[in-house]
Amino acid sequence: MITEKTLKEIFKINIYRWKTAITLIEKNSITTRGYSIEDLIENVNFADIIFLLLMGDLPSQKESKMLNAILVSFCDHSITPPSTQVARLTSSTGSPLNASLAAGLLAFGEKHAGAIEKAMKLLQDTIKLCETEKDIPSLAKQITDKHLQNAKKIPGYGHRYHHKDPRAARILKVAEKLECTGPHTQLAKEIEKTLHKTKKIHINIDGANAAILSDLGFHWSTGTGIFMIGRLPGLIAHINEEKTQEKPFRKTLKLEEIQYYGKKPKKITI
Amino acid sequence: MITEKTLKEIFKINIYRWKTAITLIEKNSITTRGYSIEDLIENVNFADIIFLLLMGDLPSQKESKMLNAILVSFCDHSITPPSTQVARLTSSTGSPLNASLAAGLLAFGEKHAGAIEKAMKLLQDTIKLCETEKDIPSLAKQITDKHLQNAKKIPGYGHRYHHKDPRAARILKVAEKLECTGPHTQLAKEIEKTLHKTKKIHINIDGANAAILSDLGFHWSTGTGIFMIGRLPGLIAHINEEKTQEKPFRKTLKLEEIQYYGKKPKKITI
Amino acid sequence: MITEKTLKEIFKINIYRWKTAITLIEKNSITTRGYSIEDLIENVNFADIIFLLLMGDLPSQKESKMLNAILVSFCDHSITPPSTQVARLTSSTGSPLNASLAAGLLAFGEKHAGAIEKAMKLLQDTIKLCETEKDIPSLAKQITDKHLQNAKKIPGYGHRYHHKDPRAARILKVAEKLECTGPHTQLAKEIEKTLHKTKKIHINIDGANAAILSDLGFHWSTGTGIFMIGRLPGLIAHINEEKTQEKPFRKTLKLEEIQYYGKKPKKITI
Amino acid sequence: MITEKTLKEIFKINIYRWKTAITLIEKNSITTRGYSIEDLIENVNFADIIFLLLMGDLPSQKESKMLNAILVSFCDHSITPPSTQVARLTSSTGSPLNASLAAGLLAFGEKHAGAIEKAMKLLQDTIKLCETEKDIPSLAKQITDKHLQNAKKIPGYGHRYHHKDPRAARILKVAEKLECTGPHTQLAKEIEKTLHKTKKIHINIDGANAAILSDLGFHWSTGTGIFMIGRLPGLIAHINEEKTQEKPFRKTLKLEEIQYYGKKPKKITI
Repeated sequence: MITEKTLKEIFKINIYRWKTAITLIEKNSITTRGYSIEDLIENVNFADIIFLLLMGDLPSQKESKMLNAILVSFCDHSITPPSTQVARLTSSTGSPLNASLAAGLLAFGEKHAGAIEKAMKLLQDTIKLCETEKDIPSLAKQITDKHLQNAKKIPGYGHRYHHKDPRAARILKVAEKLECTGPHTQLAKEIEKTLHKTKKIHINIDGANAAILSDLGFHWSTGTGIFMIGRLPGLIAHINEEKTQEKPFRKTLKLEEIQYYGKKPKKITI
Repeated sequence: MITEKTLKEIFKINIYRWKTAITLIEKNSITTRGYSIEDLIENVNFADIIFLLLMGDLPSQKESKMLNAILVSFCDHSITPPSTQVARLTSSTGSPLNASLAAGLLAFGEKHAGAIEKAMKLLQDTIKLCETEKDIPSLAKQITDKHLQNAKKIPGYGHRYHHKDPRAARILKVAEKLECTGPHTQLAKEIEKTLHKTKKIHINIDGANAAILSDLGFHWSTGTGIFMIGRLPGLIAHINEEKTQEKPFRKTLKLEEIQYYGKKPKKITI
Repeated sequence: MITEKTLKEIFKINIYRWKTAITLIEKNSITTRGYSIEDLIENVNFADIIFLLLMGDLPSQKESKMLNAILVSFCDHSITPPSTQVARLTSSTGSPLNASLAAGLLAFGEKHAGAIEKAMKLLQDTIKLCETEKDIPSLAKQITDKHLQNAKKIPGYGHRYHHKDPRAARILKVAEKLECTGPHTQLAKEIEKTLHKTKKIHINIDGANAAILSDLGFHWSTGTGIFMIGRLPGLIAHINEEKTQEKPFRKTLKLEEIQYYGKKPKKITI
Repeated sequence: MITEKTLKEIFKINIYRWKTAITLIEKNSITTRGYSIEDLIENVNFADIIFLLLMGDLPSQKESKMLNAILVSFCDHSITPPSTQVARLTSSTGSPLNASLAAGLLAFGEKHAGAIEKAMKLLQDTIKLCETEKDIPSLAKQITDKHLQNAKKIPGYGHRYHHKDPRAARILKVAEKLECTGPHTQLAKEIEKTLHKTKKIHINIDGANAAILSDLGFHWSTGTGIFMIGRLPGLIAHINEEKTQEKPFRKTLKLEEIQYYGKKPKKITI
């Protein structure tokens, strides 16, 4: 009998709307990057899944611990980031959790969340030029000099609220212990040395994580994604706090707090 | 010859992904709600298109002027609304215009932008119960009493920053002049009378526009949409101003401005 | 000397803009829910931080493993969910990662992502009525009967693409092994028994996780948040795939795939 | 008596949180770009307010009509744009209007909505180089040659669904009639001539509006904003239609429509 299926095959009617290599769904079956979801549920932790989804396969035990620590390091920075302010303000208007979170993510603009990707790109581009480990200190000096000459900040160094970001030193120590460091981390540390000598500036958490993620093999374009995964629980906690501890639509600004510098009053004359 | 098209027709392979009654697109032709786009471009103004899209046909000249005035009345309220703060904060992180706007819209939560729809619903539900105009004052009194007894605000009355919202009186005057008032406006004014006597509270722009839009025939579910259309240009102006007049990623909060009321420091003990 | 600080204290000028119990930031110091960030980086995994942020303290080892498994179970469902389609379509227009993710989260509407919270609320409300474990089967029957009589779906049961959701059975097995089950899980299983007898419907991953999260002590209002954290890495992988494997602004719809059922063409007559 | 106000003035405690030149809010008074809101409500139409907010002052009558026509021309293009698909898909999950709209705006990525700004920039940058009108045809040829040589599309020309965009010719005719054309429009038309000769490609609505907006004095950075204002009512109409005409959470994709090209199934081996 000629079925719809036969006809589709004979006449090559294209029935595919989408294609993907991430997950295969069949009736009663879910397979992600080759592993059945049941196998994953029983055997791996959440950071492993993040590694699997972004890198294509599961991490080693040390890599797993490292990625966990990196995600932990991003968890929350109180209300100082604009993304947290935006999430809470949005929530204060009665918007649901997902909308408040979405607004928060939209405030991860290039100037706020871009540092980690920029740092990863800088480190990865530089290390590609490197033939031996001996080159690293001189490359570090080149980078620092170039940025200082152009009065530009090196992404991943310095912090608006800390002189020495407490997360950076600790995550680098953990990376050392887990043997997850390599040339990118070495380069990042060399840059810090030079920068500290001349400008008293330390590496921050973005710089440290950028280096370690690069040594783990993450492409620079995944940096902001990992930061956002790490920060999401913090944003949710803030939205929760806003919803349960504050009055809805509270007045966040008084008229006296706005400075008007616009035009003088005039009449419409058409 | 048997073509793909014939087969589709014979075997009724459903090829439709989407259906719509809004616009018909054919090659070199665009027809919206029955009117060719060329005809619309040449003959109607922007508010007419809004009316056409939301109501199904073009407005009369008076209705057109009325809707224009309503949209004008929503245009901007400086930085006081959380939506404007959110749009600017988002923009300050380097996010592009559309993302900053989207964040702003997300802060049109129920507590911030919900008043107009709630007022429209209240007025429309009440007027449906009305058999003659004589009922309106007594229905107004019922509404006011019920809200006061339950210590609830009537949506569309009172304003956080104004004692008497300057837009409300003016838009009602315009509606009078354009003969766009009807039972909903009459009811809204009666409620104001009662409310002013007991609580010195005036109608605000949401209440006035809710009444007039209801008399124009707009269903209450379109209220927030019309408010958002009216406010969009203001949000864009604010995002522009943020991008051109302010330093990117400026520090909007000092540590001393955050009050911490959480747990005392402790050690992890596992 | 009279400093600004003294004056502020004497005259009680309120300098606090925000308050929070989540994280204390001081210069060179970050303390979340009482734990120093260094301590957390070195000692806990990412799921622990999620537990800490949402529940206020760190989980036990078993609870930690349980939450990890739950997050893993949410990781990806290919392109079937509207949230994934929305994230990819948004990304295909050239929007950056954070904007594409935000769009994806906005498609976690009540009908798509609401099941887990509704299931948690149903289970938690029901168990509150329970005095002894013996009541559970009869409460399950009451719930099932009531929903069937009103032709309503019980949230957390049945799946659009699976007859038997493979994730549900496995996560329940893991919960058993980790001793993380309690009355909510018992209730959820009883409902499944009844529902399977009458309608051949099985529990799905939302229902199973709703039950276990409730037994772990999570308030129902945190359900969607946990689902979104679990799904975020999958959305990022899809956006990545769209950006690297597909042509930008690819044509996702042909004119023939849109069914127009609107007005016939007519002329403007004013 | 020493009041808080006196102290603030004496000690110059900075009380300003925000500054703006757009709107001055005082108790019972709203003044936008120098005009009282009452005056605006009574005397101008909605497009005038858009002009006022983005350009700093009110338009002439011809400019007002021109901007109205431009906004009308953007109103809707059925479900073909990804932004419309995204808005409807988001709405189909039960998300509220503002969240669905926000998602739609997020799909105005650079590849989708960027053409108008790119076209405005190209025209404005080129005209700046122009000393006399005689230069325009040769500049048009230079632009066309350069793009063709690099196999790049000129922004504002060609359309995925139309051979000849019906909106472009009509809006240019309206601009002619309203005397709103100038060197940018002349340049855009010259480019079309050259491009049509060699490639049979016509100017589209983005190109035509980019030229006219440039002649009206709009900076290229406002292009996407004006497009989004023009499209918003269409998006709202689509979201409305989705909410009222379609089943919530309808199945938009069957498993057979997804092509899987990923890894073969395998077991976890740790």
